[in-house]
Amino acid sequence: MSKINSYADHLYCPKCGKEYSLDEVHQLCECGSPLLVHYNLQEAGKHLTRSSFQGRTGGLWRYRELLPVRDDDNIVSLGEGMTPVIRLKKAEKSSGISQLFLKDEGVIPTGTFKARGAAVGVSRAKELGIKNIIMPTNGNAGAAWSVYSARAGIKAEIIMPENAPSITRNECAAAGADVYLVKGLISDCGKIVARTVSRRGWFDASTLKEPYRIEGKKTMGYEIAEQFGWRNLPDVILYPTGGGVGIIGIYKALSELSELGFIEGRLPRLVAVQAEGCAPIVQAFREKKKESEFFKDSRTVAFGINVPKALGDFLVLQAVYQTDGYAESVSDSEILSSLKELAQTEGTFVCPEGAAVYAAARKLRRNGWIKENEKVLLLNTGAGIKYPDTLYVEIPYLDKDAVL
Amino acid sequence: MSKINSYADHLYCPKCGKEYSLDEVHQLCECGSPLLVHYNLQEAGKHLTRSSFQGRTGGLWRYRELLPVRDDDNIVSLGEGMTPVIRLKKAEKSSGISQLFLKDEGVIPTGTFKARGAAVGVSRAKELGIKNIIMPTNGNAGAAWSVYSARAGIKAEIIMPENAPSITRNECAAAGADVYLVKGLISDCGKIVARTVSRRGWFDASTLKEPYRIEGKKTMGYEIAEQFGWRNLPDVILYPTGGGVGIIGIYKALSELSELGFIEGRLPRLVAVQAEGCAPIVQAFREKKKESEFFKDSRTVAFGINVPKALGDFLVLQAVYQTDGYAESVSDSEILSSLKELAQTEGTFVCPEGAAVYAAARKLRRNGWIKENEKVLLLNTGAGIKYPDTLYVEIPYLDKDAVL
Repeated sequence: MSKINSYADHLYCPKCGKEYSLDEVHQLCECGSPLLVHYNLQEAGKHLTRSSFQGRTGGLWRYRELLPVRDDDNIVSLGEGMTPVIRLKKAEKSSGISQLFLKDEGVIPTGTFKARGAAVGVSRAKELGIKNIIMPTNGNAGAAWSVYSARAGIKAEIIMPENAPSITRNECAAAGADVYLVKGLISDCGKIVARTVSRRGWFDASTLKEPYRIEGKKTMGYEIAEQFGWRNLPDVILYPTGGGVGIIGIYKALSELSELGFIEGRLPRLVAVQAEGCAPIVQAFREKKKESEFFKDSRTVAFGINVPKALGDFLVLQAVYQTDGYAESVSDSEILSSLKELAQTEGTFVCPEGAAVYAAARKLRRNGWIKENEKVLLLNTGAGIKYPDTLYVEIPYLDKDAVL
Repeated sequence: MSKINSYADHLYCPKCGKEYSLDEVHQLCECGSPLLVHYNLQEAGKHLTRSSFQGRTGGLWRYRELLPVRDDDNIVSLGEGMTPVIRLKKAEKSSGISQLFLKDEGVIPTGTFKARGAAVGVSRAKELGIKNIIMPTNGNAGAAWSVYSARAGIKAEIIMPENAPSITRNECAAAGADVYLVKGLISDCGKIVARTVSRRGWFDASTLKEPYRIEGKKTMGYEIAEQFGWRNLPDVILYPTGGGVGIIGIYKALSELSELGFIEGRLPRLVAVQAEGCAPIVQAFREKKKESEFFKDSRTVAFGINVPKALGDFLVLQAVYQTDGYAESVSDSEILSSLKELAQTEGTFVCPEGAAVYAAARKLRRNGWIKENEKVLLLNTGAGIKYPDTLYVEIPYLDKDAVL
């Protein structure tokens, strides 16, 4: 008798409730909402305990039973997951936060958290027999889906704005994806994808248009719980929010763990962090709305969170409201000074999105929303080396016969 | 009574045998050789077993007792170590190697294995009260020492050739190091460092001129043993060799584990891989010499292994001879085609040095030195994203109203 690998039992729509089979290819719900994976947690709870995960290796696949892939042979892995959590003692002093931690998603294949979504998303695509995927991307997601697709033997078509970080386009191309640049925004790329999908029938791997990417990202939530010893979770988790899959995933993970009884009491308050130049979620939060409006003429140095209207905005806002969380925006100059401070005092060369989160934490401590003695976790979604020119520094020359 | 944190007991010279205290700052031996850290393995063997490490977290610091840092408070960590080992099934078919694995040192803070050396080196520098370090670098080591120094509150001065990868110079500068460029080679940078050290008395963090960097790098050897279950080690390990600290470190680690009885039988055969355009170790190996000659007019696309004469060359050759290993070189075009093959079939976007190692493995399987049914491990020393322009690919544009 074969061991049960996954307690996933069906797909469901968080908006209208309709259910779908896991054995067929699905994208959005008929009602237009993203679909989510449901697990039989009652059954899972009979077999799993916190200590089931202890001592396991394999990165995010340590949570095997709570991931949607059925057959181990379909797992497409580059060793992603279990990224480090480090303490930021100097930033504690500087910000007045009593316990400040950073989970560094730069320490993962491809250098960003997008690897998680791609690992699980591509594994499921392989399991469903998909041969071609296509997606619009601001860069990092495209790079991650390109390398995992290469590993799976799936052909990837990647459409990105010409001003996406140049490293990411080379990554896609190196992995053998067909990459195309567009003089426009990611929304323009999205339209090309939509037209191509209806013409060719390729699998649309756009953010939240397939249900499995979020399952990979939710493992950040499982890891946080495990890394903080299940019982001593942070009071506040701040997350840089563009498409929002990360924060939705973390909320889903924490809710599942809560239902399983692996974590108890109040969930950490989740904070969606945006840039002032692209803050649709923050605006909706201020107006206590359930959905966001399209944010016009968006612009920020944190390219990864330049998403004027996210398909999953209502899920992001739900995660924030349900946890008594918050949504806050920061300026580009706050982002850059936070980036510099973290690199120069903590040695953590984070991406602009990660820097935004630290800037927001400082702000929320200043205005008292983060209280004295609270434990705070910053999510850094990628390595600073993927954006090497964010901080411009003039570097001097020395003559060969110089001495300092 | 305080727990023993480290079994390190003194420094010794592998050339003349002279011993030095761990409580003083030392660079090279009086005789000019690098110094190594000695451990009281007899004592360690009374308290440690293989299972001591099971279930530990903390990356490379899981081997705490076999590292030279005495006080935990001096540990400067960004969460480095326990990089993934993945299987390369398509490359097995393509190369004819029956079991082929890759240990991916791109999945580490700063994106290269240099983080290991910097973590332990900077921790010891902090423990010894050092305030200023200086070093010449081809890029990645400088970047790693810059960020760890920033975290430790140590001032770093970094001298690099102007044609070192540009990402790494920005990394150094972002971390607040003083970075300088030189129109010349790393050897020219080394001369500036030497002059400055004699003038200012700063700590010289050049490759093998301080004894602790190698202790960080040796943890790759410990991890390999643990990741392969202590008893099923690879038959062959291939390593890209420039300064040689990695291969010396792996050999030191395996020898220590062997003395402790944690691994048994014959050690894996270690292969030093170089580029044809800079192959001093390969030349010495062919001539059965104990040391290498300066390799004139060196040039290769794998910038990290462009080291015409390594200070530790005799230790590299010792590691190769003692394990019945080999030294092999590959051409730049073999490096580039291997890089492309790995990215496009395995999804592993490795650095050129990592690609060189795969090219060498193919060669050694072809000529029969790697036998049928042997288990082979490739060390990829860094992430391909740090060298985004290595593979040039022309990327086409699409109109906004396009469809594929």
